[in-house]
Amino acid sequence: MQDYSAPIRDMQFLIHEVLEIERYSDLPGYSDASRDLIDALLVEAEKWHRQVLAPLNRVGDTKGCQLNADGSVTTPEGFKQVYDAYAQMGFGSLSKDPAYGGQGLPLILGYTLAEMSSAANHAFTMYIVLSGGAWRAIHKNACEELKNIYLPPMTQGRWTGTMNLTEPQCGTDLGLIQTKATPQEDGSYKISGQKIWISSGEHDLADNIVHLVLARAEGAPQGIKGLSLFIVPKYLVKEDGSLGERNRLSCGGLEKKMGIHGNATCVMNYDGATGYLVGEPNRGMRAMFIMMNEARLGVGMQAYAIADAANQNAVAFARDRLQSRSLSGPKHPDKPADPIIVHPDVRRMLMDNRVFIEGARALTYWTAIQEDIAHKSDDPELRQRAEDYTALLTPVIKAFQTHKGHEAAHDALQVFGGSGYVEEWGMSQYVRDTRISMIYEGTNGIQALDLVGRKLMANGGRAWRTLSAEIDDWCAAHTGHSAIMDDFIQRTRKVKSEVEEAINWLAEHGLKDLNNAGAASHDFLHLFAHLITAYMWLLMAHTAQIQNAKKEEPFYAAKLISANYFFKRSLAATSMHLEKLKTGAEPIMALSEDAF
Amino acid sequence: MQDYSAPIRDMQFLIHEVLEIERYSDLPGYSDASRDLIDALLVEAEKWHRQVLAPLNRVGDTKGCQLNADGSVTTPEGFKQVYDAYAQMGFGSLSKDPAYGGQGLPLILGYTLAEMSSAANHAFTMYIVLSGGAWRAIHKNACEELKNIYLPPMTQGRWTGTMNLTEPQCGTDLGLIQTKATPQEDGSYKISGQKIWISSGEHDLADNIVHLVLARAEGAPQGIKGLSLFIVPKYLVKEDGSLGERNRLSCGGLEKKMGIHGNATCVMNYDGATGYLVGEPNRGMRAMFIMMNEARLGVGMQAYAIADAANQNAVAFARDRLQSRSLSGPKHPDKPADPIIVHPDVRRMLMDNRVFIEGARALTYWTAIQEDIAHKSDDPELRQRAEDYTALLTPVIKAFQTHKGHEAAHDALQVFGGSGYVEEWGMSQYVRDTRISMIYEGTNGIQALDLVGRKLMANGGRAWRTLSAEIDDWCAAHTGHSAIMDDFIQRTRKVKSEVEEAINWLAEHGLKDLNNAGAASHDFLHLFAHLITAYMWLLMAHTAQIQNAKKEEPFYAAKLISANYFFKRSLAATSMHLEKLKTGAEPIMALSEDAF
Repeated sequence: MQDYSAPIRDMQFLIHEVLEIERYSDLPGYSDASRDLIDALLVEAEKWHRQVLAPLNRVGDTKGCQLNADGSVTTPEGFKQVYDAYAQMGFGSLSKDPAYGGQGLPLILGYTLAEMSSAANHAFTMYIVLSGGAWRAIHKNACEELKNIYLPPMTQGRWTGTMNLTEPQCGTDLGLIQTKATPQEDGSYKISGQKIWISSGEHDLADNIVHLVLARAEGAPQGIKGLSLFIVPKYLVKEDGSLGERNRLSCGGLEKKMGIHGNATCVMNYDGATGYLVGEPNRGMRAMFIMMNEARLGVGMQAYAIADAANQNAVAFARDRLQSRSLSGPKHPDKPADPIIVHPDVRRMLMDNRVFIEGARALTYWTAIQEDIAHKSDDPELRQRAEDYTALLTPVIKAFQTHKGHEAAHDALQVFGGSGYVEEWGMSQYVRDTRISMIYEGTNGIQALDLVGRKLMANGGRAWRTLSAEIDDWCAAHTGHSAIMDDFIQRTRKVKSEVEEAINWLAEHGLKDLNNAGAASHDFLHLFAHLITAYMWLLMAHTAQIQNAKKEEPFYAAKLISANYFFKRSLAATSMHLEKLKTGAEPIMALSEDAF
Repeated sequence: MQDYSAPIRDMQFLIHEVLEIERYSDLPGYSDASRDLIDALLVEAEKWHRQVLAPLNRVGDTKGCQLNADGSVTTPEGFKQVYDAYAQMGFGSLSKDPAYGGQGLPLILGYTLAEMSSAANHAFTMYIVLSGGAWRAIHKNACEELKNIYLPPMTQGRWTGTMNLTEPQCGTDLGLIQTKATPQEDGSYKISGQKIWISSGEHDLADNIVHLVLARAEGAPQGIKGLSLFIVPKYLVKEDGSLGERNRLSCGGLEKKMGIHGNATCVMNYDGATGYLVGEPNRGMRAMFIMMNEARLGVGMQAYAIADAANQNAVAFARDRLQSRSLSGPKHPDKPADPIIVHPDVRRMLMDNRVFIEGARALTYWTAIQEDIAHKSDDPELRQRAEDYTALLTPVIKAFQTHKGHEAAHDALQVFGGSGYVEEWGMSQYVRDTRISMIYEGTNGIQALDLVGRKLMANGGRAWRTLSAEIDDWCAAHTGHSAIMDDFIQRTRKVKSEVEEAINWLAEHGLKDLNNAGAASHDFLHLFAHLITAYMWLLMAHTAQIQNAKKEEPFYAAKLISANYFFKRSLAATSMHLEKLKTGAEPIMALSEDAF
């Protein structure tokens, strides 16, 4: 049970046919990523994730992590061996900067691997992806000296990384952080305070753990403008790069969580630990946000990846489980009953899941290319546009995909009926594991506020205007060639006009009463997500239609069926979101606090 | 944590003011239920459930049930004492037939207690409510001799009951049942077979367990028409009613489940066990359906009850947790941040939950009165109408309320942010416990098929036509008196016209292709549920408006605010459901089985 096989064909379709990454061969690393190399990598990685990593998923859930008397943490049996193998195979260094030991390949390849890994074993994957976030925050912000010390072993996977933001009194509101940093004569700092909910905070997978800690230097201002970012390693590092003495920090406890049991969620106590300033003082939030934004995209990916794993199992179960007859007459009269995949309401759930997963994958990969353009392009105009797109879509991908991904895992469980509720079948784990994605890296409510209050209006709405024009241009250029595409385009235009109506409503009502913007934020994000996902489905349907005419591969016909389902059924939610958001703050805020 | 206080004021509002149960004083038992008696009962029960039962909820989750080497099952510490106290206080016998030791009070009072009990500790409550279902199946179907033996000790709570339907190869499709019944010379039967997922199948709470087992008598036809219902007691009963030897049945294992850990979900092995036929041979499904239908209403109640408990905790957390400032400026400048209840997106979740819970409670209580009329009224016309209503609304209450209740528990967890994901806070348990409600007693997909394929069209659509006329009459009689009510009525009429359009669509497309009906069933059920809930909100808003004019009680103003939220925001989902159902089977069924 809990079988998982990475959808290589769908990945190839996006990479080679829809997004055509060959077009970006002027970006560093892209010309190295030939089609053959990519396909060989996908095949190798698929096999490893299916055969090696996925079977450890249930082990992680049932065994969990153990905090030992000496403060060390033991990860579930088998995690250490698999971690070593993962590092050995170079999966973790794929898209990292060659200057620090990475392979410098396109980010989208790192994404395909992280997708496989999350789907196969998310608790395990967290040890890796959080390291990747810490890696990028150091890469982007730290001085060359710190980068040379910390990045190469992190690239190799010998060391892992964490991010330390939350404290008991502050989660979302980081301005309330109390952890202190006291400057020392040698330029280092002494860090003291308690951080909670630190994923991968302590474990036995790597030789060292590089904690990135948000703290307030002595004398710094209150609020977020007084926060600085520090590297605080578990073991201090000697000049030759070898490990020195143990730093004054320790894991004070592990949380018992609803899911992701295989990942150690730690209380971390810093007790005058030695830390090194990353970037400028009091600019810690900015540095941390680089890490967080990329983490948010990763969380959005995790959600559809786990949904995919859950749905693959639901499809297999639905083909296998014999129960009742098809409404249109027996399909397998030789058997005692028909497989439940013949029942429309079972298919409704499988199709909802299918088109969500495929749309989310397309949007995530599309954004991965934008990220690479933003970081690597020579062309400042292209860079700016890509930065705009990434910033605009990050909260959408994070919140929408985790919301829908969680629903999809639930529907997959539902397909199993009573077996879905029995832990042995593994569906409960998918649901429990993915539940955190709606919360961590900023709750979905915070994402919605970020979109409505910041990203949408940033630079006079430039990102949205550019994207809006791109969608309009695409639709205009592809109208009149086929009835199917014209139908899809017309449905996309309807959603686009709803988004425009919503933006006008926000401009009129959201500025004069910010509670209107807050009240509308959730529905606006969902409405907006439907539009951008529709754009992805246009791209996919267009490609599938062209290829379908060229060669006989059932894949393309199936893609067009999925597209049809998306446009006819999934898009039906948009008018509801528009109607809700236009009710404004009044119905939501009318009840007095004590009347609740 | 996991505090729960039963919403007595809301219960009183429904019982005394909206539904005015005094009007039914001609029904047996209703004249005994004076307002004073009811209010005193509610106060006493609220205190007991809050102080005694609720604190055991987490214990049940963390300790679970143990299967011992001798096949006995130990329930979580404290369950036995609390069970004895519950029986002692007579809570379980409240609405049961006085002929067998019950108190004969209105069913709605039994419902208020079951609501409190589910909200406080659902795993515990399952031992009681399943006994209630078994009690009613025996009461309705068994001969007087069996009733006299089994009902009195079940009424007193000395014995509990179970229902045994599922086998490894059959859940939904009971026609596949293989458990055999061999007739004996003394009129009894020997029962052999394996049943799975038997809730409360073995435990240490009661002296005896009365299993109701669906089995196929030797020579009976295949399929559901060959099934008979049997009483199979754990201990055989002597003529004087005392317990005799152990019957040949045993618990072969306990399932590890996502939630309801405090309830023993058993594999039950029947090994030539002695059983007694209930009702006529080969009419077991009919007898079992009586039990099942009432159980389905109970499951719908359980879902909003658990949602209420979860939401009460979310409200308390949202008042307490200080994080960030209100968008409209600091509300508590003396504190480091404002409580999160000031944030519109937090309130959105709390209000969604609030109006769902209040609407579901109203619909459930309203249906409880219909059930009493159906069973107890002298007037055959009234009885028939009430039977029609109960039959029509049972799948709606079961599927819609469990779906929304589960969402509500998730939103309550979301309000807690990261704390929601930590087991210690108890929100995860509410979510995990309530997840089963969408599955057991017939999955929600089966409920939707039952509504569309059976209940809606039964007797030429009589139930719907009667209900439709009742809603129309109510709206006509209450139009033109106030702007607020006119607005609510107009919104209800819009939904009603959508339901009518959906029914016409089903009549046109569902009969010629049953897959169209199956494809539409989920969305039809949700659309229909919105209409009937809107009717409940009309009743509540009307009463609240009248009372609000008479006396100053903030309760009524709050009820009108909730009503406004429901009509403005919750009803926005209906057009989506209509649009989806009208897409028919084609998009859902187009993909071939092997292309999934």
